[in-house]
Amino acid sequence: MLALIVIDQQKGIDHPKLGARNNLGAEVEILDMLSLWRKKSWPIFHIKQRSKQRESVFWPEQEGFEFKEEFQPLEGERVIEKSVPCAFTNSSLASELRNLGINEIAIVGVATNNSVESTARTGGNLGFTVYVIESACFTFAKSDYFGTDRSADEVHAMSLANLHGEYATVINCAQFVEKTDI
Amino acid sequence: MLALIVIDQQKGIDHPKLGARNNLGAEVEILDMLSLWRKKSWPIFHIKQRSKQRESVFWPEQEGFEFKEEFQPLEGERVIEKSVPCAFTNSSLASELRNLGINEIAIVGVATNNSVESTARTGGNLGFTVYVIESACFTFAKSDYFGTDRSADEVHAMSLANLHGEYATVINCAQFVEKTDI
Repeated sequence: MLALIVIDQQKGIDHPKLGARNNLGAEVEILDMLSLWRKKSWPIFHIKQRSKQRESVFWPEQEGFEFKEEFQPLEGERVIEKSVPCAFTNSSLASELRNLGINEIAIVGVATNNSVESTARTGGNLGFTVYVIESACFTFAKSDYFGTDRSADEVHAMSLANLHGEYATVINCAQFVEKTDI
Repeated sequence: MLALIVIDQQKGIDHPKLGARNNLGAEVEILDMLSLWRKKSWPIFHIKQRSKQRESVFWPEQEGFEFKEEFQPLEGERVIEKSVPCAFTNSSLASELRNLGINEIAIVGVATNNSVESTARTGGNLGFTVYVIESACFTFAKSDYFGTDRSADEVHAMSLANLHGEYATVINCAQFVEKTDI
């Protein structure tokens, strides 16, 4: 039994100020994963960013904080709020997983190189077996520290390379379904 | 008062199998930082990777596990071992810092996108003010997840971009000395 960790599928993620994104099909793939998990009645954790910064798209006193319509949690599914990118830090996520006897998690959501990567790194460091389902994740274009512009695809691909084989197994939805026979 | 966190300055980091690195001057800058901290008698934490994987350059039953000669800890300096990239996970680092009343840390060492980045992300998530002194860090060339080769400089620069302004302040040695008036 694996837990599905859905990260930051809130309205604010569509704010134009976040710039150009990649993986336009990611939402469909996240919904596919949710359907699979719901059919199995396996645990689903919806992670929600409650930013402490007023300028954030996830500032709680505006609409961007709300889950998108299609990602509303169903009854019995867990919602865990966080105020930093990592969903494990200062949260009950690790203890809830352990109480359920779960050592394997699959992560989907946004942004690949920020909350997804931090949560995957910590999950791996804590000893969980982590899958990052990359086709169900996306991110945004960004300049590197010395000013070279990188597309969202480039940012995504470098982040995944840092994770794969070190903290997590990076995989796409089709491969994941085949591998786990979910 | 800031703590200096020196990551994985062990003999194994020079193993040729790790590939092409960047910042050939990083060791000199780390030694400069150590000298500054020692003059101030500020706390220094030497982080040491004790790998659980026999094929690792940091496997404890071979010479690569040992600190390099020039990075031997002096009396009174702390050594903290880790078996995962993040120096905070399953270690006493956070509690030792808090017991010393320290909320600010400066990170130097290797590899930028692996142990340095994981430690900086977790430090930031835990609420520490984190400086990553990038000229005193280095990393290795790597392919991204989809197979595009990236130089060590490119890997370094993307990792720093993920950290800067989100988990840490990225800065070089000269800027750090000027900013903190150390």
